[in-house]
Amino acid sequence: MDLRHAIASPERGWYLKLMAPNVKGPGHAWLDPSRLYCHPQALQDCIEDLVQPFQDGAVDLVAGIDAMGFILGAAIASFLQKGFVAIRKAGHLCVETIAQPYRDYSGRDKLMEMRTDAIVPGLRVLLVDQWVETGGTMRAAVRLVEEQGGVVAGVAAVCIEDSEGGSWLKKHYKWAHCVLPHLMPQFNAHYLDSFQAFDAT
Amino acid sequence: MDLRHAIASPERGWYLKLMAPNVKGPGHAWLDPSRLYCHPQALQDCIEDLVQPFQDGAVDLVAGIDAMGFILGAAIASFLQKGFVAIRKAGHLCVETIAQPYRDYSGRDKLMEMRTDAIVPGLRVLLVDQWVETGGTMRAAVRLVEEQGGVVAGVAAVCIEDSEGGSWLKKHYKWAHCVLPHLMPQFNAHYLDSFQAFDAT
Repeated sequence: MDLRHAIASPERGWYLKLMAPNVKGPGHAWLDPSRLYCHPQALQDCIEDLVQPFQDGAVDLVAGIDAMGFILGAAIASFLQKGFVAIRKAGHLCVETIAQPYRDYSGRDKLMEMRTDAIVPGLRVLLVDQWVETGGTMRAAVRLVEEQGGVVAGVAAVCIEDSEGGSWLKKHYKWAHCVLPHLMPQFNAHYLDSFQAFDAT
Repeated sequence: MDLRHAIASPERGWYLKLMAPNVKGPGHAWLDPSRLYCHPQALQDCIEDLVQPFQDGAVDLVAGIDAMGFILGAAIASFLQKGFVAIRKAGHLCVETIAQPYRDYSGRDKLMEMRTDAIVPGLRVLLVDQWVETGGTMRAAVRLVEEQGGVVAGVAAVCIEDSEGGSWLKKHYKWAHCVLPHLMPQFNAHYLDSFQAFDAT
């Protein structure tokens, strides 16, 4: 769907059609969700869908995961008028940090870190990433918050897949994503019927 | 200033006091501006200061620069109810991209890229990063937008230093940052009187 001529629809998740398939082949993600952010109404509707379960004031701080999780995380923080804390790949922050090892979606062992002066015991933190695939990165973020006494108010992403890690997150925390149930099998399989068919709906 | 007890002030730029100095020594940035995002009113006031020159509807799309520029960029896009496009370090996007070489603040040659389906000739783009030091990254972003026929509506960051590149940007584009003139000599020198003194104001 052409970004310029995309017309917003009241149908939930209409904006998922704006996501772009991989045209660069192996070594790249199968899908680029970030195209939907380019459309003003799509970004707005996506944010509203993600905050819907958290509108009751049960969030004190929004945390976004490096790097694409910063986008929805910061937009959500602005929408909810809350503060935003960055959970970063290790080595960047010049301040005191706490770190967590994790295995990312590509199977590589990495380290995630965050500042130690943002969370106090009992603070309710909404964790945001662009996409939860294996859930490894998000679980490291959960541990960073909980180790400091923070409370995970919820987990939000464009899609939280039904992987082992994604299912664990959905079982243990309040969560929100944008994908309608009938599309989940395709998202879990990293395959959409055909982008043209998806496009035409 | 303790984040929990920081009190918002009507004084312009009050939230700059929340930025944290480097405690990790050489190899790290002298300052971490991202601490101010953790405070809800600070983030809100920072966004409002940055969008102030661009409230007249002269922005069609907000672009944020990888990675920390995603935070203020997405928060500004949400605030202005515009779309957001990510300008990324090369190699990440699975879609068709255009690339620009640049030299970052640490003197390393890198490549920046963005999708090719977000900008059409005449589209007015507000470029956002966390901080403009040498201006190399931001100039690459300007070229990416202009090579596609887009119009740079402005440049915004917490601070745009008076470096050669920063001054060039200020001369050629509408710009906004958060730093008061009397503090600029210290910001340009990457030094603040004393964080305690800065803290106490």
